[in-house]
Amino acid sequence: MKFNDIIDNPPLWLEGDGPFNEIVLSSIIRLVRNLDGYIFPTRAKDEQLEIISDLVKDVVLNSPYFKDVFLISTIELSKSDIDIAKERHLLKGSRRIMECIVTRDEKVSVNLNEEDHIRIECRASGFDLETLYSVIFDIDDAISSKLVYAFREDYGYLTSCPTNLGTGMRLSCILHLPGLVLTKKINKLLRDISSHGFSVKGLYGKEGEVEGSFFKIKNLKTLGLSEEDIVRRTNSEVRAIIDLEKKARDKLMEEVGKSLEDKIWRAYGILKNARMLSQKEFVNLSSAVRLGIGLGLIDNIDLKTLNHLLLYTGPAHIQRLKGSIMDKDTRCIERANYVRRVLRYR
Amino acid sequence: MKFNDIIDNPPLWLEGDGPFNEIVLSSIIRLVRNLDGYIFPTRAKDEQLEIISDLVKDVVLNSPYFKDVFLISTIELSKSDIDIAKERHLLKGSRRIMECIVTRDEKVSVNLNEEDHIRIECRASGFDLETLYSVIFDIDDAISSKLVYAFREDYGYLTSCPTNLGTGMRLSCILHLPGLVLTKKINKLLRDISSHGFSVKGLYGKEGEVEGSFFKIKNLKTLGLSEEDIVRRTNSEVRAIIDLEKKARDKLMEEVGKSLEDKIWRAYGILKNARMLSQKEFVNLSSAVRLGIGLGLIDNIDLKTLNHLLLYTGPAHIQRLKGSIMDKDTRCIERANYVRRVLRYR
Repeated sequence: MKFNDIIDNPPLWLEGDGPFNEIVLSSIIRLVRNLDGYIFPTRAKDEQLEIISDLVKDVVLNSPYFKDVFLISTIELSKSDIDIAKERHLLKGSRRIMECIVTRDEKVSVNLNEEDHIRIECRASGFDLETLYSVIFDIDDAISSKLVYAFREDYGYLTSCPTNLGTGMRLSCILHLPGLVLTKKINKLLRDISSHGFSVKGLYGKEGEVEGSFFKIKNLKTLGLSEEDIVRRTNSEVRAIIDLEKKARDKLMEEVGKSLEDKIWRAYGILKNARMLSQKEFVNLSSAVRLGIGLGLIDNIDLKTLNHLLLYTGPAHIQRLKGSIMDKDTRCIERANYVRRVLRYR
Repeated sequence: MKFNDIIDNPPLWLEGDGPFNEIVLSSIIRLVRNLDGYIFPTRAKDEQLEIISDLVKDVVLNSPYFKDVFLISTIELSKSDIDIAKERHLLKGSRRIMECIVTRDEKVSVNLNEEDHIRIECRASGFDLETLYSVIFDIDDAISSKLVYAFREDYGYLTSCPTNLGTGMRLSCILHLPGLVLTKKINKLLRDISSHGFSVKGLYGKEGEVEGSFFKIKNLKTLGLSEEDIVRRTNSEVRAIIDLEKKARDKLMEEVGKSLEDKIWRAYGILKNARMLSQKEFVNLSSAVRLGIGLGLIDNIDLKTLNHLLLYTGPAHIQRLKGSIMDKDTRCIERANYVRRVLRYR
């Protein structure tokens, strides 16, 4: 399959159909692994990277989860292709040679030679860490049955960066918390979450800013806890946040229901009619509409469409839709055109 | 015909189909007259007012322009009816006994016993002072052929307030000047207009504020000029303003066309989706949409609909549509509901 085909199908984890999808956009689990006896990618020469890559690819491509895949290699991609892969969360960082094997539905990917030899990542719609946990260890087992991982009894899995040492496992959820933001409870909550050993940050917006009330929460500890413990703790932390967000939304509806409804419909009206939209504004307006869907106030649009729009209104995707490099103003115009086209018949 | 029927048909002078209708909402001409030998209404007793009223009504109702009329009398109307009549510009002031004979299309009205015994008013869509001029003097001739006006060779027609002395004639136009407002040329223009002997004020908005770029211009001088002179001067003054507004709009399109288009469509999107709308906000949003129609940027809605909405979103009209007295917040909700209903299939 060619890289360009990837554009035509939105990732399946953006379907907006998972558990608690009105608050949790998606769940992600990732494991990092390194091969025993091979130098970490950050220090390896190109020839060494190629050997590692060939070894892992051979195993992965023959395992049952990877029947229908895209093979992404930064060597073969243009700068704008790489930007698209990054917007789809398939590539991170900026190493010269990176490869990614990704299933057609983009729910499972294996990255080669980024920070570590292997980064396995599984994504699901909504709040569904348990399912992801069982999938990712199936894949991990398939790989480890053919290749020997760098592992020490005292530390666990060895990783290029010490923050990943131990389980090499990171769980994360993308949360939409407008209720907590609007009721001004978010700052205390963020402090509480941090003190429980999680990192939580705005998903959009520069340093310290939060656009659209989207947050990414992830476990910080990978060492000294079992995988099951990490899953259990993350699960209950996210579950507690979901409950707080629900309560905050109920409170908002009770106290300012009509003006909230007004705000939500205005956001929808602007999305449907604007002729220029920055990404930041799109994120914020779509956040209001998303809240409206969660509250049952609006049904002209569904979460799936909003999720797809969040991805396809990214700068690289907007540029690709038009097939040409554009300045920021032109992107704003094309973004607005695209959003209108998608919303027209909904 | 009953007063309540008046609500069902928008006035014909709001059809948005007159000359220069993209800039001139409507043209109005009025004459004030008093009967010779009768005391001015402001000083008259009720019995005297009744005699005057009967005399004038008898003549007016038998003249050809008044075959199909509403007869409005403040004695018979509730407070909310009076408010509606005021929003439709059929009644002014707050005297205890006032009557108005108004044609069904609301293009012609004769008010009795306001400041003067008789106030004849004719309205037209767009910029059309000449037609109004010929209509109003037909009516004036019909009345003066049966009744004797208070008139002196040196002063002309005698009026209760000295500012109306002479011709008793006032010409006015409702202008929409967003181009001049947005290009910041309006303040100098308003000073120029005033220095030419006209009064020009914001149509909406409290003291000194201007909402929606709507202005009302009228001649100040009624004495020392012939009727023809007043019409000629007002015509050329308004014509010059129209030209300036057109130039300002061209300039805007040239310099900020895309962001103007964006602003206009957002306003439309908000009108079509808001759940709460103050009258002030409606005036401003509809002003942006009106500009969009004038510039050919939007065609989902026409001037006629916008004109009707301007009238029917007034506090008294909104209240009447629901048939109950409401607080301001509830009116905002009902106003938004009404606007959505009207715009739904356009």
